[in-house]
Amino acid sequence: MTAATSPSRPSSPVGLHRVLEPAGTLPQAAQRLDDRPEVAPDEVRVAVQRLNLDAASFRQLATKHGGDGDAVRREVLEIVAARGKMQNPVTGSGGMLVGVVDEVGPESPLGLAVGDRVATLVSLSLTPLRITDGLASWDGRSEQVPAEGHAILFGRSIAAVLPDDLPGELAMAVLDVCGAPALTDRVVRGYEAPTVAVVGGAGKSGSLSLAAARRAGAARTVGVVPFDEEAELLREAGLADAVAVADARDPVALAAAVEGALGRAADVTVVCVDVPGCEHGAVLSTADRGTVVFFSMATSFSAAALGAEGLAADVTMLIGNGYVPGHAATALDLLRAEPGARRLFERRLAD
Amino acid sequence: MTAATSPSRPSSPVGLHRVLEPAGTLPQAAQRLDDRPEVAPDEVRVAVQRLNLDAASFRQLATKHGGDGDAVRREVLEIVAARGKMQNPVTGSGGMLVGVVDEVGPESPLGLAVGDRVATLVSLSLTPLRITDGLASWDGRSEQVPAEGHAILFGRSIAAVLPDDLPGELAMAVLDVCGAPALTDRVVRGYEAPTVAVVGGAGKSGSLSLAAARRAGAARTVGVVPFDEEAELLREAGLADAVAVADARDPVALAAAVEGALGRAADVTVVCVDVPGCEHGAVLSTADRGTVVFFSMATSFSAAALGAEGLAADVTMLIGNGYVPGHAATALDLLRAEPGARRLFERRLAD
Repeated sequence: MTAATSPSRPSSPVGLHRVLEPAGTLPQAAQRLDDRPEVAPDEVRVAVQRLNLDAASFRQLATKHGGDGDAVRREVLEIVAARGKMQNPVTGSGGMLVGVVDEVGPESPLGLAVGDRVATLVSLSLTPLRITDGLASWDGRSEQVPAEGHAILFGRSIAAVLPDDLPGELAMAVLDVCGAPALTDRVVRGYEAPTVAVVGGAGKSGSLSLAAARRAGAARTVGVVPFDEEAELLREAGLADAVAVADARDPVALAAAVEGALGRAADVTVVCVDVPGCEHGAVLSTADRGTVVFFSMATSFSAAALGAEGLAADVTMLIGNGYVPGHAATALDLLRAEPGARRLFERRLAD
Repeated sequence: MTAATSPSRPSSPVGLHRVLEPAGTLPQAAQRLDDRPEVAPDEVRVAVQRLNLDAASFRQLATKHGGDGDAVRREVLEIVAARGKMQNPVTGSGGMLVGVVDEVGPESPLGLAVGDRVATLVSLSLTPLRITDGLASWDGRSEQVPAEGHAILFGRSIAAVLPDDLPGELAMAVLDVCGAPALTDRVVRGYEAPTVAVVGGAGKSGSLSLAAARRAGAARTVGVVPFDEEAELLREAGLADAVAVADARDPVALAAAVEGALGRAADVTVVCVDVPGCEHGAVLSTADRGTVVFFSMATSFSAAALGAEGLAADVTMLIGNGYVPGHAATALDLLRAEPGARRLFERRLAD
């Protein structure tokens, strides 16, 4: 037993005390975590029911093993045993998990209770994990991994209690993007009756961001989509005051579409579309002293920074942080309140 | 004569009317710009004195031609003649220029007067340019290119009048980084007596950001540098309340250094160090509801977004926009007011 997790040593809210090697790194960067079930005073232990492997990670494993499910299962077991966490050594990515809380340290700030069914909203790549059933119920052919074992949540981990009133798959899809509507809400409330453009408005994060913007006091909203078919879906959902069709990679076309729909440039532009090259269009669509929130992982930092400078655009550009306190509850509430958003989600899940 | 710049057609503040091909793109993305000297009502024409080629562009040209200065000169002339702007077709980058204003359109919002000696703060890659002296005074062996000809500034271009009281090279070095102190000023003023950490505090953008933070009301500032030698320079400059030595790529070490120097986490963290991998450390160094401003072009969008989520960090993350109204004057004023900052700049210019 190392001193790191003994009761006499303080635990770290970001899990530094669980890092075995290399010493001094954050859990995400660590080669190996301490996966023991004993919880520190601010930790929570979860009885695992299911892992959702990150899509990039599963694809790498399946390709490497030519679709041999047994080999994929063996490698996942080896990774978890060796690293004390499920982090694909090639892609670096993890995924998330669903389980039931079975011990809560007396100083845990997470507000969880024994028996709560939760989804973790921090990556498996930094979550201590031990598998005890050899993944016997998994055929190695899907990202959805039935599993038994335990996982540890730190003081600053994030987990959401799964709601009783929504199907599990639907709730998980909402939780997957819950940072976007929460940050949109905060940014929109920073303006008085602003105009808001959501690029990629018919997607999961986009549709909830539109709903969040309206609830937060937007004077007028537009959802921009790439095709007429998506425009029709978004119109039926009733989430935006206007719907426009434009290629977000064409700055002049995007800005014209936004201005045409809003009557002026957007005070807040939210980018939810996962294609590269949308930075200049987003900047050009945004009014002076406006804000662009980039949620797309395809965003190029330098394209955004140099684009704004080249356009002499006095806009605030935010890197979309997936964590805002209360984000899970906010997103689930929006889905409950907006039948149009729920229909869009259900349609995507059915695809 | 095309209709694009005829008086009967409105000009675009971002220069769309000067784009010859492909139609509908922004000037930066265009293959060819209209370089004619006649100004639209909101344009300004500058008599060029000197081009400063972007370092990456010059390196590419010099390497391609094996250091043959005549060949480099010929290619620059060919590029400008073919494209109507100096944009290296391989690197995509431009540079900036110095010249004297010789015509101001009646509706120009730039506040320039005929005879002003200016530096352009938008890239040559989007600035209409015609060279008339065959670059006869340039040997093709330096990024500094004496040149005659004209350049066009749009309604939303940015140009700074060069001050009489500072050496040209010093003023240019300050203008090159003037976005950082201006945005730091704005962010710091959004908090009440915040603590501020500047990572890379002894560099050009870092030292001016420290000076800006103090002037904007920071309660306590720390400049973080990688080596003892830089720490000594920054201490002598007197720009920060504390100076700390840490490797910014080590999140735990950086956060410990910042907290040790400030007594708590930073409300505002400004990243000015041009090495990859500083995102997690910056997030970990920043207090809840704090702000991280990333000025380094080495910043990874996804590392920042996923890092903050993984740390459950409720921090606002800004993409450092190089343009803030008044940024040139703010930066030059800071340099005049802070002899310590000026010494740091002069030392770097002498290297």
